[in-house]
Order: sequence, then C-alpha cells, then structure tokens
Amino acid sequence: RSGEMATKLTQLIDNEVFWAYATYTTIVLLKMMLMSLITAYFRITRKAFANPEDTASFGKGESAKKYLRTDADVERVRRGHLNDLENIVPFLGIGLLYALSGPELSTALLHFRIFAGARILHTFAYLIPLPQPSRGLSWAAGYVVTILMAYKVLKTTLYL
Amino acid sequence: RSGEMATKLTQLIDNEVFWAYATYTTIVLLKMMLMSLITAYFRITRKAFANPEDTASFGKGESAKKYLRTDADVERVRRGHLNDLENIVPFLGIGLLYALSGPELSTALLHFRIFAGARILHTFAYLIPLPQPSRGLSWAAGYVVTILMAYKVLKTTLYL
Amino acid sequence: RSGEMATKLTQLIDNEVFWAYATYTTIVLLKMMLMSLITAYFRITRKAFANPEDTASFGKGESAKKYLRTDADVERVRRGHLNDLENIVPFLGIGLLYALSGPELSTALLHFRIFAGARILHTFAYLIPLPQPSRGLSWAAGYVVTILMAYKVLKTTLYL
Repeated sequence: RSGEMATKLTQLIDNEVFWAYATYTTIVLLKMMLMSLITAYFRITRKAFANPEDTASFGKGESAKKYLRTDADVERVRRGHLNDLENIVPFLGIGLLYALSGPELSTALLHFRIFAGARILHTFAYLIPLPQPSRGLSWAAGYVVTILMAYKVLKTTLYL
Repeated sequence: RSGEMATKLTQLIDNEVFWAYATYTTIVLLKMMLMSLITAYFRITRKAFANPEDTASFGKGESAKKYLRTDADVERVRRGHLNDLENIVPFLGIGLLYALSGPELSTALLHFRIFAGARILHTFAYLIPLPQPSRGLSWAAGYVVTILMAYKVLKTTLYL
Repeated sequence: RSGEMATKLTQLIDNEVFWAYATYTTIVLLKMMLMSLITAYFRITRKAFANPEDTASFGKGESAKKYLRTDADVERVRRGHLNDLENIVPFLGIGLLYALSGPELSTALLHFRIFAGARILHTFAYLIPLPQPSRGLSWAAGYVVTILMAYKVLKTTLYL
C-alpha cells in the first residue's frame, strides 16, 4: 500500500528538473560530508583533538593533555567545512524552490552544474591550497549562481 | 517536453502558502548570504585574514604574516552568520513541512513574516550593535515561531 | 480558497514515507534547536560571553570585561551544535529526496529512526560526556544511514 503511494508520488514528481536538482544536491551534500572524514583524518594524524575524552587512549594526565590543541591543517579543513555549510544551505533551499519554479531543463542543469563544479573546485583550492584568487573565484561562482536562482524564484513566486 | 512537465508541477504546487514559504525562505537565505560579503568587507578593511594564501598580495614572510589574525569586527559578523545558520536551517526544514501541513494562509503568512522580520532585526542588533535585550528578543521571536510551526507539523503528521 | 488548495496539496502528499520524514526531521531539528538553549544556560551560569553588550548588566569597564571569555562547557555545547549542523543539514536534503524516491515504508522508517536515535545519543555522549567510542559510534551511525539514503537517491534519480 505504501509502495503504491510512493510510486504515485514519484510519478507526480516525474520532472527532469527536479531530479537534476536531486542529483546535484546529493552530490554537493556528500562532498560536504566528506569534510568530516578529512577533519577526522587530520585530527588523528596530527594528534590534535578538541575533547579530553578523545585523547584518553594516549594515556592519562599531562601525557594526553598535550594533544588537546589546535592544528593549522585541522583548522583549514574546518574552515572549508563551515564555508560549505554557509553556501550549500542556501543552495539546498533556493535550488529546491528554483526547481519547482518551472525553469527550462537546460538552464537549470547549467545552474546546478556550475554550482556543484564551483564547490568541488573550492574544496581543492582550500585544501591543497591553491594560490588566490582560485578559492575566491570558485566561491564567487557558486554564490552568483545561487543569487540568479533566487532572482528567478522571487520573480516567479513573490508573495509578501 | 521538460517545459510541459515543469508547468504541470508548478500548477500542482499552485498553493499560496507554499509560495509564501518560497518567498520568505528566499529572503532569509539571501540575508544569510549577505553575511559572507560583510565578512569579506571587514576582513579586507581590517586586514585580518585566516589563510596565508589570502595575505600573499601584502608581500612575503613577516610583512604578510601579521595580517593572519583575528579581528573583533570580523568575529562579530562570523558569530552573526553562525547564528543565522543555527536558526535558518530549522526554519528551512520545519517551514517547508509546515507549509505542506495545510495551515490557513493568513496564519502561515503571520509566522513567515515574524520569522523573516525577527532575523533581519537580529542582524541589525548584532552588527550595529544595539544594546541588549534587542538581539536576545529578536532571536527569541524567530525561535518561538519555529517551535510553533514544528508543533503544527507534529500535530498534523506525527508518524513515529 | 487557500484552504481548499492547501487541502488538495496535503492529499497529494498523502504519503506515509513523506510524513515519517516530516516527523523525524522535525524531531532532529527541534533537538538541534535545544542546543541554543543549552549554550545560553552555560553562558549565563558560567558567566562566559562573546559580546560586550551581553555583559553590560554586570557593570562597566573592567568589572564586565572579565566575563568576555571562553568556557570549556560552553565550547563543548557549541561543538555539539556545529556537529549537529554538519550532520542534520545533509539529512534534511538527502532525507527529503530519499522520501520522494519511493522507498518501502518499513525501510524508510528504519533509516529515519536510526538517524534520529543516533543524533540524540550523540548529544548525550557529547554533553555528559560519555567515554569514547560512544560519541564516535553514534556519529558514525547517523553518517552511514545518510550515505545509504544518498545511494538510493542517486540510484533512482541520477541525472547529470
């Protein structure tokens, strides 16, 4: 019974723009989730932790306490992760509303592809790191695409 | 073909509450995105950066290294930005589900307007800054509205 | 008129998987919002604030300035809050797309319940704190469930 309903809903949302949104949103969210693993990798290899309970395996007292510290590489990944949150959250919301606002498929795909590509480039630019303005430009590309989608949403749906 | 489908989906979601949600969500997300530009403005004017590659244009070695520092104004904008994330993410999710839970249009508009107004006031209160409890009250208004919408969602849809 | 439309839309999304998603998403977002209150509680009881205007009630000048400081308990809650953002934002997006991708109700419920349970356990493990690997395992459970849902979304909808 639930299977039927689900099928019906799926047919209903049998909309190529919506599924393009689904694909690119899933990709950028998975990319963002990867930052957690990279942070964990650097915390373990650099032995730089934020919580006393995380250093318990290194012994007790002073011997473990020295691993409660910040590390430049860990902080770099964390800044990249926060930048992802700041930029992917707007895409999540505005992109969904944009996909439902009836854009042309080719136009929508162009927006989604530029956004996803820009965020992937941004991560490489941040983590390698590449010299500026690599990171700045990749950030700006994703930002501008989101603004353009927001404009389309407001033009279509403005209801104050 | 895609155009037709998109039109069909748009008609389907020809729901005033949904489009009110779309409008106010886009507004608060754009407001949140503005925090990135304000952070960049303060980083550049206060010369306070987080990444060595961002200071490369100020020369090499020690002359550039002194710009790798925190600045009170930059940190203030960043706290405002994080507070936006912490409060707008719940609105994004709970607001969407609330819009789909069949509220009265006038009630829904009241919730969305208070939330958007509260977050805009919160930003002014944080950045000027205004004396407390300005920031506290504007934060609380958005928080309470989100809780009220969550209650309506759970009352309508509770499915554990 | 709006009421009718809303009813129609509600019937349309008369999908058990979708409402299960709505319920669990609302629960985890409310849980995340609770972190703001816990942060405020520790800031007030530990007298550890981030903004000068927050300490104005303690007097002027040096007597208030000493409360502008970080506190281990406050920072711990803030790390838990940020970890929520990093993990609940992917669930918000991927979970919605997963719910619309036509999964079996029982399978979907299993995913949503494990995710919500894992995030609640994670909060207890972080705030008490429990010895590791409690926090690590609860984090990993939510992470893996989100990856599995993303895989189902991409398998159903891949549209590059």
